[in-house]
Amino acid sequence: MTTKAPKYEAIVAKKVAQRDSKFVKEWLIPKESLPDLTDVTGWIPKSGFLTEEELEITEANVLEISKNIQSKKWRALQVTKAFCHRASIANQLVNCLTEVFFDEAFKQAEELDKYQDETGSLKGPLHGLPISLKDNLNVKGQASSIGIVQFCFEPEQMEEDSLIVEVLRGLGAVFYVKTNIPAAMMMPESVNHIFGHTVNPLNRNLSAGGSSGGEAALLALKGSPLGVGTDIGGSIRMPSSFQNLYALRPSFGRFPNYGGRSGLPGLESVNSVNGPMTTDLESLEYYCKSVIGDEPWNRDAKAIELPWKSVTLPEKMNFAVLMDDGVVRPTPPIRRGLQITIDALRKAGHEVIEWDPAEHFRLSEIITSFFLSDGGAYIRDAFEATEEPFFPFMNAHKVAPEVKVKDLWKLQSERSALLKKYLERWNATAAQTSNGKPIDAIIMPATPFAGNPTGKFQDYIGYTSPFNVLDYSVGIFPVTRADKDLDPRDEASTGHSATDDKVWEDYNPEETHGGAVALQLIGRRLQEEKVVEMLKLFKKLIKYEH
Amino acid sequence: MTTKAPKYEAIVAKKVAQRDSKFVKEWLIPKESLPDLTDVTGWIPKSGFLTEEELEITEANVLEISKNIQSKKWRALQVTKAFCHRASIANQLVNCLTEVFFDEAFKQAEELDKYQDETGSLKGPLHGLPISLKDNLNVKGQASSIGIVQFCFEPEQMEEDSLIVEVLRGLGAVFYVKTNIPAAMMMPESVNHIFGHTVNPLNRNLSAGGSSGGEAALLALKGSPLGVGTDIGGSIRMPSSFQNLYALRPSFGRFPNYGGRSGLPGLESVNSVNGPMTTDLESLEYYCKSVIGDEPWNRDAKAIELPWKSVTLPEKMNFAVLMDDGVVRPTPPIRRGLQITIDALRKAGHEVIEWDPAEHFRLSEIITSFFLSDGGAYIRDAFEATEEPFFPFMNAHKVAPEVKVKDLWKLQSERSALLKKYLERWNATAAQTSNGKPIDAIIMPATPFAGNPTGKFQDYIGYTSPFNVLDYSVGIFPVTRADKDLDPRDEASTGHSATDDKVWEDYNPEETHGGAVALQLIGRRLQEEKVVEMLKLFKKLIKYEH
Repeated sequence: MTTKAPKYEAIVAKKVAQRDSKFVKEWLIPKESLPDLTDVTGWIPKSGFLTEEELEITEANVLEISKNIQSKKWRALQVTKAFCHRASIANQLVNCLTEVFFDEAFKQAEELDKYQDETGSLKGPLHGLPISLKDNLNVKGQASSIGIVQFCFEPEQMEEDSLIVEVLRGLGAVFYVKTNIPAAMMMPESVNHIFGHTVNPLNRNLSAGGSSGGEAALLALKGSPLGVGTDIGGSIRMPSSFQNLYALRPSFGRFPNYGGRSGLPGLESVNSVNGPMTTDLESLEYYCKSVIGDEPWNRDAKAIELPWKSVTLPEKMNFAVLMDDGVVRPTPPIRRGLQITIDALRKAGHEVIEWDPAEHFRLSEIITSFFLSDGGAYIRDAFEATEEPFFPFMNAHKVAPEVKVKDLWKLQSERSALLKKYLERWNATAAQTSNGKPIDAIIMPATPFAGNPTGKFQDYIGYTSPFNVLDYSVGIFPVTRADKDLDPRDEASTGHSATDDKVWEDYNPEETHGGAVALQLIGRRLQEEKVVEMLKLFKKLIKYEH
Repeated sequence: MTTKAPKYEAIVAKKVAQRDSKFVKEWLIPKESLPDLTDVTGWIPKSGFLTEEELEITEANVLEISKNIQSKKWRALQVTKAFCHRASIANQLVNCLTEVFFDEAFKQAEELDKYQDETGSLKGPLHGLPISLKDNLNVKGQASSIGIVQFCFEPEQMEEDSLIVEVLRGLGAVFYVKTNIPAAMMMPESVNHIFGHTVNPLNRNLSAGGSSGGEAALLALKGSPLGVGTDIGGSIRMPSSFQNLYALRPSFGRFPNYGGRSGLPGLESVNSVNGPMTTDLESLEYYCKSVIGDEPWNRDAKAIELPWKSVTLPEKMNFAVLMDDGVVRPTPPIRRGLQITIDALRKAGHEVIEWDPAEHFRLSEIITSFFLSDGGAYIRDAFEATEEPFFPFMNAHKVAPEVKVKDLWKLQSERSALLKKYLERWNATAAQTSNGKPIDAIIMPATPFAGNPTGKFQDYIGYTSPFNVLDYSVGIFPVTRADKDLDPRDEASTGHSATDDKVWEDYNPEETHGGAVALQLIGRRLQEEKVVEMLKLFKKLIKYEH
């Protein structure tokens, strides 16, 4: 008796073959020449596969690239080709790309060069800058499969750019790749049945994280100078922290947001937002200023008219630190990262107090209920359409009961009360600080991990997801890397929870060695400028070198 | 066989007796001395029941009151008593009050006077100013029955102020009355089984409208210098237009909004907002500056950090006018009001084009679906708890089917697309105007009526509700009053719809004579300052005198 292959397999084969055909053949490195390293972050520059010029371009930050394009030292096409080449190598190292459209990028870049030659001016502040995009951001003419087989060819070509893509295009950006994600973007590791799993370039035994995991891995390898991720539960922050990037999860309404492909379309109890990810903080700030300078509120009905403003930080600042949320204790390298940060802040004269995660667990439960409030119907239907099997991580979507709107209303009421409480607790820190002012930010882990092997993330995203419910503006900053000698295993688990036990059990200093230690910097809602300024301060104090 | 009286009747009797006991006996006018007039707006000043001083105080606007309190020409207690007295008379004329708490107000005012005497300064910009509140805004120690019998004594005393009330209290405002509304605030006329129906002081054959109808009627009689209404489908705008007030429906997030009593608690697909209503535009602006000057974003987790900014209008402005939305043609006085406005704008050199209501009808259908998305459960349960009968207007809540979240998500997706379309059409007006700039605002009716007899509103709120879905900032401005000679009946209905036929059939120039003709001024989202500036322009051009 033979079993008929499930439908999805043929679709995957076709999709992957199509993607693979888009690479430039001469750029593909023969298998035997690929490295057998765990940490591949330093390999590309030394590999000899990029020209010196390609290296110079791809090691430059966004401002340097812009300046050199303006002076015509570099042309848009030349810059685009360099990043396409490097992205192609990155993909061979960590499997980070979904859509590959170099030809379209070359054409776009040529047109930009022509525009500059003819007008003597640039199309916008991002003229000729290659920007990589998370797979769920739509690019006209490309697919958005979002890790679900059914969507590989439905449609094969999106008819419109997502609004953020349209805005970036108008500012002169060039698009060339989209990056890998978990199926439906509903897992914290970037794995799906189409493109497989994206591994972490800092330590390829570890996952790149998710859901913007392909993006983060590509950026860590400088296959892109800046990428755009999205975040509805931690999807910018978790992978950015796993790859030691700088990143910003803005509050909803700050950046243009319309028209991405969602795994939960129509969900509004909590909103996905997009934001920049990069190894270079200056590039991140330049991106924010450029996008918001374009006045997205004139095009996006949900964007808020808030121009990017200049913010001066007080000389002496107050920070609260969350070392352990009482559900899952962070693993040793993350706790060391927190201590490094606290020490650096105190040394610089800032005050550090403790943060009580009182509402976090309930907020993380509420967001999960929001995600599942359609009874898992949308995602389940999409999987079933091609007989695609479910991932264990996504089992909740399989078994979720149908929810009635009246029950959703109750949850939303509860959430409103929790938001108020949280804000009141933030304000009340004024009574704890020596200058009588409330905290400026909370510093805390983005996950308990400095990366983890595939399948070992467990199911807890409670370090990031409360801030989606709260809609606070959050930055990610790198601190250090995991070190098997400095970060020995704890003698026992805390007994916080079953998940905590598993996290403790799974932690292996050898396996995690070299993994990224990056943290969250939590600002209040719509305080993106202040968050970026604080990231700049932290960079100066912590001095992490990429 | 005798039928047992339904439960709700005894609760109503107790509640009304309790309310009635709160009036100052000496202020109550004997029935035989009350006027038999249709238009009672001019009666109070001529009636002799108020002292000259009380008259002077209650005819003053918010700025004059503030100035005179600051100079101690008037004291807070004196001002409060004057408005309590006038509000008491207003209630006898139009039945506009729900909660009456003069004693608490006197105490609050005395404390403010004492504060001023002791400190030599004012508690805030609203020091000693009586502010009336729509019934759903909670005042610590008072009930919020929201027109539902079950809530008369559940609880009898609210434990906390709504956030807007807390903010106003902190700024020095005095609270003394809450005002009548339709049951659950879900009808366009202010009628319920507790307090009955609020009639329109401009023409007592007409309804005050709803849901902030008691508020609007009280304000038109100057029983309050300024009131706060709420709006989730037109509830500030419809009654303000029926009483020729100035009013502002702000976008969500501009004013503190937490903690009102809702007829649909937990609904977030569309949000209720609160805003000022008054006969005096200067008072309205002063209120906005005072409330937003208090930085509500530090207390309300959903408020946006947007200080009140000064806006200068362009010399030549562009307006679009909607004369008829194609569903219900406005009655003749409203159309005359539109024409007066158009003529005044054109005469002053502004450009006026037509507005296409393309998305309006669908938006009004979507908002109705949002209101009913709990299957009517919350309101139905509340009515059934005391055997309270349903109003025909609210039948939809009785028969609504249970909705699943997955279907709500579809509606929300559709709405997002419509919002984008609407904004694009707004921007596209740039191609129609002679200066190549898009319109600054849309001018249109708030309802098809210059008021209507109770029960004759019909079920169509499609002139206001689309802007709740869009969340635009909207002003109301008075133009004129209905005139039986100038506003004859149309010869035939347009045949737009069955509702249109009924509206045409019901229109009676004699009956509507003297009714208010006020219109909506639609600004873009979060453009409250610009809307207020435009209201000031319109006031100057149209010169309506209260």
